[in-house]
Order: sequence, then structure tokens, then C-alpha cells
Amino acid sequence: MQSPNLVVVGSVAYDSIETPSRSEPDVLGGSATYFSLAASHLARPGVVAVVGQDFRKDHVTLLQDHGIRLDGLETAAGETFRWGGRYDKDLKERDTLFTHLNVFAQFSPRIPQAFRDAPYLFLANIDPDLQHQVLDQCTSPRWVACDTMNFWITGKLDSLLRLLPKIDALFLNDSEAFELTGHRNLLQAARWIQARGPATAVIKKGEHGAILVSRDQVFAVPAFLLDSVADPTGAGDTFAGGMASALAALDDTSPDALRYAAAMGTVMASFCVEDFGPFRLARLTREEIAQRLRRYRELTRIPEMSL
Amino acid sequence: MQSPNLVVVGSVAYDSIETPSRSEPDVLGGSATYFSLAASHLARPGVVAVVGQDFRKDHVTLLQDHGIRLDGLETAAGETFRWGGRYDKDLKERDTLFTHLNVFAQFSPRIPQAFRDAPYLFLANIDPDLQHQVLDQCTSPRWVACDTMNFWITGKLDSLLRLLPKIDALFLNDSEAFELTGHRNLLQAARWIQARGPATAVIKKGEHGAILVSRDQVFAVPAFLLDSVADPTGAGDTFAGGMASALAALDDTSPDALRYAAAMGTVMASFCVEDFGPFRLARLTREEIAQRLRRYRELTRIPEMSL
Repeated sequence: MQSPNLVVVGSVAYDSIETPSRSEPDVLGGSATYFSLAASHLARPGVVAVVGQDFRKDHVTLLQDHGIRLDGLETAAGETFRWGGRYDKDLKERDTLFTHLNVFAQFSPRIPQAFRDAPYLFLANIDPDLQHQVLDQCTSPRWVACDTMNFWITGKLDSLLRLLPKIDALFLNDSEAFELTGHRNLLQAARWIQARGPATAVIKKGEHGAILVSRDQVFAVPAFLLDSVADPTGAGDTFAGGMASALAALDDTSPDALRYAAAMGTVMASFCVEDFGPFRLARLTREEIAQRLRRYRELTRIPEMSL
Repeated sequence: MQSPNLVVVGSVAYDSIETPSRSEPDVLGGSATYFSLAASHLARPGVVAVVGQDFRKDHVTLLQDHGIRLDGLETAAGETFRWGGRYDKDLKERDTLFTHLNVFAQFSPRIPQAFRDAPYLFLANIDPDLQHQVLDQCTSPRWVACDTMNFWITGKLDSLLRLLPKIDALFLNDSEAFELTGHRNLLQAARWIQARGPATAVIKKGEHGAILVSRDQVFAVPAFLLDSVADPTGAGDTFAGGMASALAALDDTSPDALRYAAAMGTVMASFCVEDFGPFRLARLTREEIAQRLRRYRELTRIPEMSL
């Protein structure tokens, strides 16, 4: 069995999701779940996370059937992390109804031997202290990216700032970018981040897509337009999983590879939101991905015309 | 003197603009001003509007110096239309402080003889009854587009709906698209509009750009990213002016021409917001436009890579 070429450290969870058209408790979720399911189509992901004794066998099987290595999925005494959220009628805003950390409260990530040399590493949105702890266990990955959120920007800013020089890319939402940097202008926010370490800032704008700013380029990544969206949960993690797995598959972090990978992340995210939970990602084919990438290219194609 | 190939009917106004960094009264403004200044770089625009006796000579000269035909600019007894607005600290939201229609209240557009055969026609955001009145005076333009706003969607819906079968493209904001169609999903909103006549719907999303939906294609138009924005006033009209003038210059309304033109509209809008009022548009060169269009192409370029 080949070692993973992309390791994600994050959450595996059960989500209770309420949308105007459908509500369900205990939907398979968590950042590492969405990330790794998306990534499984292009790379060999390995997951580092913790679940409780209530974590369902068929969910373990689902991940394994996608070639996702679970050596790093610890089972601890107690219940799996649970999160509940309710979306507004636009599916644009959501309220967190509850967060029960459960076994995640004591999570202390241990990177299995087979994962330590993985060249691509994604530190999903967890405590920056744990993100440091993961990095300390890994042997100089080629590309490390990290996601974060308002909670850590407020509560663990020092730790987060100490992390920035150690990573290649920071993923965050536009509102979080403002909170972290004090800049409302996205380019200025990205420059602020770059000045503190990461060569690349990926600022996510939800339904409006994302922008990728690296030292030598700015790439606008509009969202793929869909006739209907079922559930936006996990779209950001799926975007990151699609992007990181494309880099891992190419084994290339050049400016053009970053563009291509961000486009792939957008394509993956567009599939994710088509169904409730992560299940559209689970039943995706390479041909569907290739076809949607062609449509995505067409979405932003500017023809040459002479005026 | 050649006849205009692009006629705009809209407002010429004095705006009082308040931004966090600068406030000024009586800044040259109005939809037809922004539109025609943008359009003057690519096409031969003609303006149909009304101003009061207070309208400054140097502003007439400014427009004329850009080759803008003012045969349709009527001077009426009274004051020029005045609008006042205040932007929030993000320059994303704005409050209207006052609207004094002044001479615009009695505006009854008369299309000069030299304008009636113009192949491209833009009905800026005015009373739909007046938009009908303009159309009745024109001899089958090749492409007619119309902008509208919440005020008319609420107050003159019947007239607006009767206009739709007569036009080729409807321009409106995302919130207006929802108000008009009842659809929060932009593709569904665009299909609703298309079912009522216009082959093309252009839904503007402010800082996030726009989408163009025509019968055979969907084109995402992300905004050009700027390090700083001085004043968003007129960006939508400038976008429309850039787009319509590119179509007029190409004399082509094919799907590819619409894409190219929308990109050009975005480029023009990016210049517009760099300065207070419409003055950046007034001092723009063809070389600056060409250079920014190249940068805009690069902003969304997805390289070919093989996975």
C-alpha cells in the first residue's frame, strides 16, 4: 500500500443540518471528511482526526472505499464531535445551533509513521496549537496549507501568527481575512498575510468564489454557477481538498499549478453543494470532474476579438 | 460629423458623494454621464438627457471633448437633477441621502433625428414609461439594452414587463433580480427574465463582478481586483457603457462578442472606481484600457495542465 501523498488533519463529525427544504441530524461531516472525499479523486489522502465510539462502521467503510488512509483516525472513549447549523432561505448565511466538541476536546493529533513524509499537508480549521504540534511531527512537507477561523483569530492569535512563517498557504474567509489583517480590501489583506510568511493567501467568498494571491500573481476564482444548491456545508473544505489534491497529483506548486488547482477546488466544491452532506463527493466520477472542469473553463473564457 | 452608433438615454446629474475619506457636493454624475464617458473610448456615443440652467459649461465641454454628441441634451428651466449618497466604511453599502429630481421630473426624452438610426441603444435606469417612449422614436436598433431598479420594479412593474419583449438585454443588480423574479438563484432569475423576452440577462454583483446569461452561454465576470477604491459611484453605468460600446465598436452581438464586451465593461468599471466621480474615465487612454484588459485576462486564466 502506497503512503498518502496528502495528509489532512481536521475534524470528522456528525452534523445536524437545517436548510429550508430539508433537515437531518447526524449527517457525516467535518473538515477532514469533506477534504479527503474531494481529494480522493485525484490524490492519496490520509486523515488524522478523532471520532467517538459511536462513529458508524459504514462511514469508516465509505472513506476506506475511496482509498482514504485512516491510520490516523483515532477512536476515543466518548461521542463523536457534533455540530448543528441552520441556513437562511438563501443558503447564504448560517447560524451555529450547537457545537459539542465531545472527543475532539481532548484531541492531540498523532501523525502515523506512514504519513510523516507526505509531501502535501493540510491543517484544517483546528486550534493553532495543534497545527504547530502536527507540523512538528512531519518531515518538511513540500507544501503546507492551513485553514483558520474567527474563533482562533480572536482566541489564539499569537499561536496563529507564529504558524504563518511555517506554512505556504493560508485559507480563510473574507470576513476572517478582515478580522485577522484589519484590511477590508482583499488584496491588501492578502499582502498583509504574505508579509507574515505564507507565499499564498486564498480568500474564500462563499457563493462568489475565491481569490488566490501569491507573490507573483492574482487569480480570481468565481464560483461555478448552479441552478440549485442543496447544502453549502463543507464547500470550503471541499474546495481546499480539491485544490490540495490537484497540487499533490501534479506534484507541482508553480504559479500555474496553483491556478489549475484552485479551479479544480471550485469544481469539487460545486459538486459538494449539489447534495445534502458529503455524498455527492462520494459518488463522483473522474469523467464528471473532467467535464465540469471544461464547463468551468468555458464560464470564464474571454475570447480574443480585435477592436 | 458622423452619427452616434450608440445612444444612451438617462440622467446627467450633480451628485453629493460622501465616502469615509472624502466628501464633495455637486460632482458631475448621472447614468448617462458615466455611461457615455466610458463608451467614448470605443464608440461614438450620443446622450439624451435633461439638465437645468445651472449645468456648468465646462462639464458640457468635458463631454464634447470626448466626442460625445449632446444633440439630445436638453436644457430646461430649473436645476439639474441632484442625488446625494453616503457610503459605509467598506464602500460596499450606501444610503441615499436625498434625490431632487428637479428638471428630471418633467423629462420627456426626444430623440434627435441624427440619433434615431443608431444601431446600439441603452435605456439607463429611468421610468419604464420613458423607456417605451424612447423605443417608439427609434428605428429598430440592432441591440437594445435596459437597466432598471427596485423603484420601478415596485412602482411600474406592468410597464417594465411590457418593455422586456422589446429589448435584447436587461441589466440589473442581484437584489433587483430577486425582487423582479422571485428567484434568489441567479441562474433561475436569469431564465425567468429570458422567458419574458431579453435574450441576455446581465446581473451585477457590485464588488463581486457580474454574470452574463444568454440563451446559449453563461459567463462569469469577476470584478478586477484593485488595491484601493476611491468611489464606487457610477460603476454599474460605466460597466454598461464599456460593454455596449465594445459591442458597437465590433458591431457584433454574437455570444463571443458579448463575453468580450462584458470583460471590457469590467475593465472600464475598474478605472471608474479609482477616482472620485467620473474623472478617471475622462483621462483614460486606449493604451491603459488595452493593458488592463490584458491583466484582466490574466486574472481568470486557467492554464492547461494534465493530471
